[in-house]
Amino acid sequence: MDTKEKIIEIANEQFKRYGLRSVTMDDIARMAGISKKTIYQEFADKNQLVLEVFTAELDKDKSAIDCFPVLEEDLIKHLVELSSYMRDRFADINPMVLNELQRYYPQCWQLFEDFKKEHIYKQIVDVLEKGKVQGYFRPEINTEIIALTRLEQMMSTFDPIKFPPSKFNQVDLQVELFEHFLYGIFTDKGREAYQNQKKQTNENHN
Amino acid sequence: MDTKEKIIEIANEQFKRYGLRSVTMDDIARMAGISKKTIYQEFADKNQLVLEVFTAELDKDKSAIDCFPVLEEDLIKHLVELSSYMRDRFADINPMVLNELQRYYPQCWQLFEDFKKEHIYKQIVDVLEKGKVQGYFRPEINTEIIALTRLEQMMSTFDPIKFPPSKFNQVDLQVELFEHFLYGIFTDKGREAYQNQKKQTNENHN
Repeated sequence: MDTKEKIIEIANEQFKRYGLRSVTMDDIARMAGISKKTIYQEFADKNQLVLEVFTAELDKDKSAIDCFPVLEEDLIKHLVELSSYMRDRFADINPMVLNELQRYYPQCWQLFEDFKKEHIYKQIVDVLEKGKVQGYFRPEINTEIIALTRLEQMMSTFDPIKFPPSKFNQVDLQVELFEHFLYGIFTDKGREAYQNQKKQTNENHN
Repeated sequence: MDTKEKIIEIANEQFKRYGLRSVTMDDIARMAGISKKTIYQEFADKNQLVLEVFTAELDKDKSAIDCFPVLEEDLIKHLVELSSYMRDRFADINPMVLNELQRYYPQCWQLFEDFKKEHIYKQIVDVLEKGKVQGYFRPEINTEIIALTRLEQMMSTFDPIKFPPSKFNQVDLQVELFEHFLYGIFTDKGREAYQNQKKQTNENHN
């Protein structure tokens, strides 16, 4: 791992744990065992560091999801793996992060908005359409409305006014909302296949 | 109907159709066939008129819902009537109204926020708890998370950024989201009872 990658990794860990604003360039230099000057050789400023950390994270998500079973072959297994991926993913993110991003790092936030529109939204539409064709989802659901709602819902858990972090944790929220989303669209066939796949996946993990 | 009630009724119709800002006190006087002076005898200013129109509307909703079958006796019928009530209710509201309320009539908006927290949220929690006991809803759902999400979702349809009014109408949105909400929480028993009740209600209406 080169210096730049090491800085990104350490910054990422610190940001996820403590939020963006409270972690300084000094903190990151200290944790990485390098001088502040070295950090500034790689990143013009904290804005750029945040941007690169965030870009790397979104790339990781894209690659991870690309490795799930393809929708044409095993849509339900894809969903179960997605659920378990999200659980791990959200487990260690400080819920402040997305709020700070929106408020203080508008360039990053825009990146994230684009990612939502270009990647996540299209992915949800794709899952819904293929699940309908395969008989897992109710044919009468309105793909566009349900996809937009799901997208908003995923983000809503990070709103500290709606869901105070002192009361709710991100993993519970995400799992609860994802399962509610799925049950809301399943046909009998879909529901049964999902429950079987979950049982099987849990057995393999134990 | 006295003059004040007549003004409230006409203002309500105009607001729902054209939004709050574009309807003037002059418009309302003209439509009611009275002088502007008479309006100002009943209402100190437009703020007060908006507040009273809105209070009257919320009271109507409370009374309407109080007349539905009680949850202990026929929870599913209650839900089907609620759905059909909402359909009629949202059919003729200009989606701008809630946005204008939030922006320009903060006192009314607060009333609405209180109504949401005090009345609608508690109502949803009550339905969820009773539906679980009666075996209509999946016992494992987290009542608090699902109730908060449902509350947000009902409001989300009025957000013109999320759901541009040029593309979506409120009735389609509300019906789609309400049905998705229900399917997301139903047990087999709940789903079957709901489908039967809907069929029966539609037959009675035809």
